[in-house]
Amino acid sequence: MAEHIDLAEYLFRRLYQVGVRGIHGVPGDYNLTALDYVAPAGLEWVGNCNELNAGYAADGYARVKGIGAVVTAFGVGELSAINAIGGAYAEMAPVVHIVGTPSTSIQNSGACMHHSLGDGNFRIFAEMAAKVTVAQASLTSAHTAPSEIDRVLRQCLLQSRPVYVELPTDLVSAKIPASLLSTPISTSIPPNDEGFEDAEVDLIISKIYAAKQPFIIVDGFTSRYGPGVAALANELVRVTGFPCSTTPFGKGIIDETLPNFHGVYAGIAGKQVYMPWAQSCDLVLRLGPLNSDVNTFGFTTIPDPKVTITFHRDSVEVGSADNGGHYKNLHIKGLLQKILDRLDVSRVPKLDPYPDLGCPRRQLRALEATDPEGTIDQNTFYQRVSTFFREGDIVLSETGTPSVGGRDFVLPKHTQLINSSIWLSIGYMLGATQGVALAQRELIADGGRKGRTILFEGDGSLQMTVQEISTMIRNRLDVTIFVLNNDGYTIERWIHGMEASYNDVAPWRYLKAADFFGAPQDDKEYKISTHRAATWGELERLLADSEVQDGKGFKMIEVIMTKEDAPESLKKLVQTVQKRNSGVLDAKVEGDKITAKAAAQ
Amino acid sequence: MAEHIDLAEYLFRRLYQVGVRGIHGVPGDYNLTALDYVAPAGLEWVGNCNELNAGYAADGYARVKGIGAVVTAFGVGELSAINAIGGAYAEMAPVVHIVGTPSTSIQNSGACMHHSLGDGNFRIFAEMAAKVTVAQASLTSAHTAPSEIDRVLRQCLLQSRPVYVELPTDLVSAKIPASLLSTPISTSIPPNDEGFEDAEVDLIISKIYAAKQPFIIVDGFTSRYGPGVAALANELVRVTGFPCSTTPFGKGIIDETLPNFHGVYAGIAGKQVYMPWAQSCDLVLRLGPLNSDVNTFGFTTIPDPKVTITFHRDSVEVGSADNGGHYKNLHIKGLLQKILDRLDVSRVPKLDPYPDLGCPRRQLRALEATDPEGTIDQNTFYQRVSTFFREGDIVLSETGTPSVGGRDFVLPKHTQLINSSIWLSIGYMLGATQGVALAQRELIADGGRKGRTILFEGDGSLQMTVQEISTMIRNRLDVTIFVLNNDGYTIERWIHGMEASYNDVAPWRYLKAADFFGAPQDDKEYKISTHRAATWGELERLLADSEVQDGKGFKMIEVIMTKEDAPESLKKLVQTVQKRNSGVLDAKVEGDKITAKAAAQ
Repeated sequence: MAEHIDLAEYLFRRLYQVGVRGIHGVPGDYNLTALDYVAPAGLEWVGNCNELNAGYAADGYARVKGIGAVVTAFGVGELSAINAIGGAYAEMAPVVHIVGTPSTSIQNSGACMHHSLGDGNFRIFAEMAAKVTVAQASLTSAHTAPSEIDRVLRQCLLQSRPVYVELPTDLVSAKIPASLLSTPISTSIPPNDEGFEDAEVDLIISKIYAAKQPFIIVDGFTSRYGPGVAALANELVRVTGFPCSTTPFGKGIIDETLPNFHGVYAGIAGKQVYMPWAQSCDLVLRLGPLNSDVNTFGFTTIPDPKVTITFHRDSVEVGSADNGGHYKNLHIKGLLQKILDRLDVSRVPKLDPYPDLGCPRRQLRALEATDPEGTIDQNTFYQRVSTFFREGDIVLSETGTPSVGGRDFVLPKHTQLINSSIWLSIGYMLGATQGVALAQRELIADGGRKGRTILFEGDGSLQMTVQEISTMIRNRLDVTIFVLNNDGYTIERWIHGMEASYNDVAPWRYLKAADFFGAPQDDKEYKISTHRAATWGELERLLADSEVQDGKGFKMIEVIMTKEDAPESLKKLVQTVQKRNSGVLDAKVEGDKITAKAAAQ
Repeated sequence: MAEHIDLAEYLFRRLYQVGVRGIHGVPGDYNLTALDYVAPAGLEWVGNCNELNAGYAADGYARVKGIGAVVTAFGVGELSAINAIGGAYAEMAPVVHIVGTPSTSIQNSGACMHHSLGDGNFRIFAEMAAKVTVAQASLTSAHTAPSEIDRVLRQCLLQSRPVYVELPTDLVSAKIPASLLSTPISTSIPPNDEGFEDAEVDLIISKIYAAKQPFIIVDGFTSRYGPGVAALANELVRVTGFPCSTTPFGKGIIDETLPNFHGVYAGIAGKQVYMPWAQSCDLVLRLGPLNSDVNTFGFTTIPDPKVTITFHRDSVEVGSADNGGHYKNLHIKGLLQKILDRLDVSRVPKLDPYPDLGCPRRQLRALEATDPEGTIDQNTFYQRVSTFFREGDIVLSETGTPSVGGRDFVLPKHTQLINSSIWLSIGYMLGATQGVALAQRELIADGGRKGRTILFEGDGSLQMTVQEISTMIRNRLDVTIFVLNNDGYTIERWIHGMEASYNDVAPWRYLKAADFFGAPQDDKEYKISTHRAATWGELERLLADSEVQDGKGFKMIEVIMTKEDAPESLKKLVQTVQKRNSGVLDAKVEGDKITAKAAAQ
């Protein structure tokens, strides 16, 4: 290797080293020369249609691969992407946002440059970015740039949240010692203090042994706390045999074929039996919580702190202040590992009788046969379509009726579900799907995985970011999209304005998308297929069709649903949203002692 | 009228009073109830496909109507739009950004709400917005909200820049005294100090009388300094007879049929004769300047301050410090009016011989006839297509080859040209066109105008914001779009990466857009027409076709150009961009004494 390399090469090789293989983004005149270094670093340039979509795609990619990257241009490009970066922050997706900026001399001169506000201030956009990223690097010299890059990449990986890198045009080819690349970016975490950890492990195990009515709730951040944590969570569920649910955000982390898996705990929006049982538990093990209103069904699934052991990334809360404490500097991975190592399974209480919390698999099998001529309804669609899923699939459910309904999916082992559970930016999921499909292709090529990329998308959401279908096709990604066409923003109709015209969307001819976006015609290596299902019979024939099942090429299945149909759980949930919008702080639920204020802490 | 009205009604009626008729935006759960008040206030709800496009549309609308408004939802919606708001700030478009936010009690509780980052901080996005707006109102009580709304609307109008309004869900129906509506929002400006103004007017007039080689440069902000200023600028050009040019940003403000109008002064990118002549002037009257690199052709058209009188909104700079001064608190409107009132036309010097700066109309007529089979070239396309324009048209040229080429348009009287000259966010112009077409329809309905809305759009740009074609069609707007299909980001190819794959875009089937986006088929009241021109003969037949000319319905003309073709002026210009990107602060130009640093001040 040469003694010196250019800074842009250093940056992209560092990204390669930490697992990035595809770079999302849009070219712009302050980043063009940097893009010359993408392919030589072994990376694929995706080339999105716009920056917001590129940001969404990098986020989706990151949720599968553990890190993603997006390149935009100063000002216009980066601001277009900032909503995606905000989402990555809120939902803990590790995205590196690289911004091509004007040269350092231009910036120092305060010149009135294009893509600036014209006031000579080149820091405004970085100041905005700092609010939605966990680390920032404004590269200003060849001397400090490598360590700055390493610092933010490390934070991106450790905190699983976005970081921001400004690369001025004049530093792209600044010379950096090539030898710096041979020291890997360390993401090791200091081991937990043995003595301290031992004490907490013993405390937690004693509570497990003593539990009479235990419950495990696995939430979505569990999968963000580093490689291996989700596997340990699964092991905890398996060896204890304790009844386990996930939150909406956590769905897909736990193997849903385990006999003690009982679906999503939906609080006031769920089945009557579930919440009273959960609220009378004497031990709740809670992993990786995201306490947002939607993820907790209006704060109704947050368990009583007194009986709860909450595992965060670097700390554990055991009970409430009067009978426990919040123990910092204990990383979840070491902690769970030690609990599992020390747990004497024979002393773990067996529930007898085991509570009847429902088995999603049995519920799916118990569904009545459909009327082949019948209209497809939201209330059973998500269960029924689950027969289509296979191991290795990555399933994405867009915010709106798909994400609410998708809580009823019955997932095979090793299936990843991606939804949004606090940021809820509609349009995200189509962009994310492009990134996920790329990540999936890389994983398959590495031999580590098989499976498809399957998106459930609403019509209103699709319209937000539709052009990324072009990016999927141009990059020849294998994607299956179910477009749930119900003639507008149905989730919003249920919140407010059932008949209001502002909840309508234009009646697109969705199945013509691939053709409009330039899909190759009759390309045997990359097939385009489009289908429409307006009845259960049509849908079931499609789901049974081996060509639909193969997941190859670009497939779109338009599913026609009625405008006002929604999953039952959504109808219940929106009542609490309406109350909060009118100024009522919390939905009053009988027996619910959790207030919104406490929930926010 | 009732004694009290709801706050949302107050807000929308105030918008109506200051000239808004159409509201852009996207529904979201924190703004839904507010949207119920749009139609009753006499306003049209547009319903865009996404928030960035809605922001662009509101900006385009504002550039025609003098004010525009966009409604988004907290967090996700507003951040998606923030790039558009930044552009409105940089280019002085008066846009009111209304954000539906969580209820005040929720915000005060710090709850972990959807569309937030989950940290209980509800001020983050407002802090970002404050960086790209000139006034902000966080409505928190019925008592103060009306005056807060009035304050920001006044600033929006006076400063011609965006403002930001947060409307929490619980304040939507807060009761406001209806009588407040009967006091109009004052946009009057204090009259200039008579004695002070008189002195400056006399000084300026004396310099006009004494000039041997005078020049007028009209820039784009001239049209942002309030109603009537552009007319006064035209009158100044007409009565003095001084040679006049516009900047790229100012193009369209001055009647191009005046004999002393000489097109865009393009500095180093222009004709050889122009810059030496301009730089040897002894008086330059400069109106409403935007000193950005692209608008000044790499700072080469900024005249010597010593000989320049620069008219800003509220001040005038006469000469440089040693022989003049910067006089504040003099509004351009009063100042220009008094200059025109007092000017003795007989004492205004006549240039003899009049300099040969070229006449765009004569240059157009002198063009050789095209080869009907010949390829359409960028270098003469923009001149030739000018024969298509008519009085009252609003012409939009997207950033990239269209905006550079569009400097060669030869415009009829009363034709507005919209381009971007500092923000340069590609994709802007398609969104803006939707807003402009709505504004144009309103002006036509008011009987104040006739004319079409005509967009020149690049293929790469179109891909950014394409779904707003759906919004045009759904709102039955009359729009004519020339899609310049040259197979990628050609302007970027010229800057860097002529053959680089990152400058490619997917080969869409552009003419299928309207069909994909759900256009009605065979609707006699709203016709869809699509055409392709690959040769001069095909283009000229289309331009002469009365059905193409009528401007009714949705028309798309795809113009095929070669990938590497660009206007000559662009090829020259990008050399300076390349230099600056490599760290050279200023393009060295012989005889150019203006530095980038001075230009930025």
